[in-house]
Amino acid sequence: MSNRVANVTGTALLTDQYELTMISAAIKAERADRQCVFEVFARRLPDGRRYGVVAGTGRVLEALEEFRFSGDEISALRGIVDEPTLDWLADYRFSGDIDGYREGELYFPGSPIMTVRGGFAEGVVLETVILSILNYDSAIASAAARMVSAAAGRPIIEMGSRRTHERAAVASARAAYLAGLTATSNLEAARTYGVPSAGTAAHAFTLSFATADGSDEKAAFAAQIDALGTGTTLLVDTYDIRQGVENAIAVAGPELGGVRIDSGDLGVLARQVRAQLDGLGATSTQIVVSGDLDEYAIASLRAEPVDTYGVGTALVTGSGAPTAGMVYKLVEVDGVPVAKRSSRKESHGGAKRALRAARDTGTIVEEIVVTGGGIADGDVADEGVSGDWAVDGLGSLKARDLQIPLVRGGRVVDDVPTLADAREHLARGLVSLPWEGLGLSHGDPAVGTRYITRPEK
Amino acid sequence: MSNRVANVTGTALLTDQYELTMISAAIKAERADRQCVFEVFARRLPDGRRYGVVAGTGRVLEALEEFRFSGDEISALRGIVDEPTLDWLADYRFSGDIDGYREGELYFPGSPIMTVRGGFAEGVVLETVILSILNYDSAIASAAARMVSAAAGRPIIEMGSRRTHERAAVASARAAYLAGLTATSNLEAARTYGVPSAGTAAHAFTLSFATADGSDEKAAFAAQIDALGTGTTLLVDTYDIRQGVENAIAVAGPELGGVRIDSGDLGVLARQVRAQLDGLGATSTQIVVSGDLDEYAIASLRAEPVDTYGVGTALVTGSGAPTAGMVYKLVEVDGVPVAKRSSRKESHGGAKRALRAARDTGTIVEEIVVTGGGIADGDVADEGVSGDWAVDGLGSLKARDLQIPLVRGGRVVDDVPTLADAREHLARGLVSLPWEGLGLSHGDPAVGTRYITRPEK
Repeated sequence: MSNRVANVTGTALLTDQYELTMISAAIKAERADRQCVFEVFARRLPDGRRYGVVAGTGRVLEALEEFRFSGDEISALRGIVDEPTLDWLADYRFSGDIDGYREGELYFPGSPIMTVRGGFAEGVVLETVILSILNYDSAIASAAARMVSAAAGRPIIEMGSRRTHERAAVASARAAYLAGLTATSNLEAARTYGVPSAGTAAHAFTLSFATADGSDEKAAFAAQIDALGTGTTLLVDTYDIRQGVENAIAVAGPELGGVRIDSGDLGVLARQVRAQLDGLGATSTQIVVSGDLDEYAIASLRAEPVDTYGVGTALVTGSGAPTAGMVYKLVEVDGVPVAKRSSRKESHGGAKRALRAARDTGTIVEEIVVTGGGIADGDVADEGVSGDWAVDGLGSLKARDLQIPLVRGGRVVDDVPTLADAREHLARGLVSLPWEGLGLSHGDPAVGTRYITRPEK
Repeated sequence: MSNRVANVTGTALLTDQYELTMISAAIKAERADRQCVFEVFARRLPDGRRYGVVAGTGRVLEALEEFRFSGDEISALRGIVDEPTLDWLADYRFSGDIDGYREGELYFPGSPIMTVRGGFAEGVVLETVILSILNYDSAIASAAARMVSAAAGRPIIEMGSRRTHERAAVASARAAYLAGLTATSNLEAARTYGVPSAGTAAHAFTLSFATADGSDEKAAFAAQIDALGTGTTLLVDTYDIRQGVENAIAVAGPELGGVRIDSGDLGVLARQVRAQLDGLGATSTQIVVSGDLDEYAIASLRAEPVDTYGVGTALVTGSGAPTAGMVYKLVEVDGVPVAKRSSRKESHGGAKRALRAARDTGTIVEEIVVTGGGIADGDVADEGVSGDWAVDGLGSLKARDLQIPLVRGGRVVDDVPTLADAREHLARGLVSLPWEGLGLSHGDPAVGTRYITRPEK
């Protein structure tokens, strides 16, 4: 049992063993190169959710570029798969095409979020790493978007790193920023993805000024202001909040940037602290609240004088839905649609095209998934999907294609949307939801998914 | 917004910004080197859980050894903290001591799972990375241990990588193995931690043999057996399970290693498939079941002819408790106990010693946490904690110390228990629980935690 540090540069072993044993069998049966289409989709949204947010696409493309079986990986696999398979893996480089929903796009049950085209073996080996990234990042972004809606314009800082795996924390900060959070406490996310970072002090800082003579909150505040300036945020609930606020303004003056409250009934405390600050002339000192906030707690504080929210546990655990539950399914082999048939897990075989129909106002009304090969523009227009069309008396509708090219011939395309693009795209997408789609309570998906089968001519 | 691959070798930026701003303020106030004691503990167990399992200790020690601020990290932090702090960080190397519960130890509310002693700055900077690892790994191991109990001796394979962050998946596989699972599908966990790996084929493999003439399950089975031998496990529910089993034995013969069922009512199907296999003479062919199993589903299949379970989503998400919720608190400064006092989050100040009392039979009865400085062996014996003692008429009890040395003077000690040691230690620990402690239903912690304050003399 070795105890060495996990190899954390390559991504090729972030893979389930069965993918390699399938490749081994496919090579032996001379089926490894059959042209296949794999699709990523979610059969359903997490219980009661109205929409999902696609996140992780950018990270998938990064992982793809690092997905190589070097000497170290090959050595590790010796004994697990046979030599012809090891030779194949050593030469592995994905050579196919990938299309997908933009990062930051809304999704619904059945939305074909990502489509991978290539040989059977080169496509099947990507299953785990693609799903791990999309399932985690989308779970976080989907929860975060609800928090942003609940905050109704007030900023939210992500500070949940300590409550999830240390590398997941970085992805979480990225996904939260994508969803509209303002900043993160996570410094690796700041370095790697340019997410704005924030943070001032914990209770430990105030406590560290205690001596045998007792606590000394004022000394702690003075030291923080000396280092970080009066624009900093002082944590006022280590001992007594009322005294803490008094000490904060006594030390910093009424120009203090902010105070943070991390415990107690945040609504009541925010009102008391606001009144106290105003009474001390600190009318522009902001109030930051944190402490086990989720989207419901954020919404419940809407009427209170809260300026900024800090969220942690609920965010990094997807607020009750820690995985998006997406699957990666083979849907087409050499042009033949295929689907598992033995259970309710029935899939729609065949490569798909996805469109989203919206009213002139921009409000979306339907996710449209077209299968059957005949999915050129003209064909779709025949179904009344593209351009102006009327359905169910809803008036004039427009539809737009949801997938964009991500990889061509194994290479990531040049103009893949950035994280900033994804953040903007989601903000626009949320505005396009029917009004009930932004409800926090449990409900159905905000729009339905309609399947159109258009057989190849 | 950069899009480059996350730096995934160093661990120093897996840190919340406020740790560095606190260091900045502490340096300026000349308080950075005050001798401090920080403790990791959980205020409570996840709702209804009877015990927790400490996991991640080995990974914390690995992360500690990689926790260095090199030129790249320092550049990233320029503008976030001042130059004196950057200089301090560039020289950073933890020089203190760490003690902790063994990896694989049970824990209860208030158990001092890890104790970090050193200067304020060198201790506070480790908060996030230590908590991230312990919170995630312990959440997974705690859920996994319940699944192992529910399986009552039958093997369980971990196959949840796709449902969590790609690196968390590796930690998850490690924690699951620690908790007693048999193997993992995750190849990086096999390489890095030596966890036994397993895996054969997915539905995609069977589907990939379809042609315009239709499906060909037999060809897929034949190819798999050709590559992996008759000892392999064939997935029989792609099309029709009854036909699948028939095809499997027709192709492999009655010596087939196993069949896997991944959908449907697994209890009913296991019985039908067992009868069918026996009827075909395949009496030693094993039945593997998978598909959204958690500890309750595993337990519900106890009476069925299931040989092996595969678990995924529920395992990697902690089966409803995706974080252990541990905190890292400053409890002592220059020998003075400190604690936050403004809320119900009240902590017990002062460094602690933890003991666990057990009957002669080995059944544990109490977690004993001693604070107050006077915690040398003799003092504890005075409280009736060490050696043979009688309490509440329970007869003769023994107590053992729970913390062991992990780091001395910044260096990991030589004989830190390995992953294999942790796995054995947990197996013994679970046997020591009072019988109600292994109940799957919601309940109270299996034993209570008693605090003894023993003031320094």
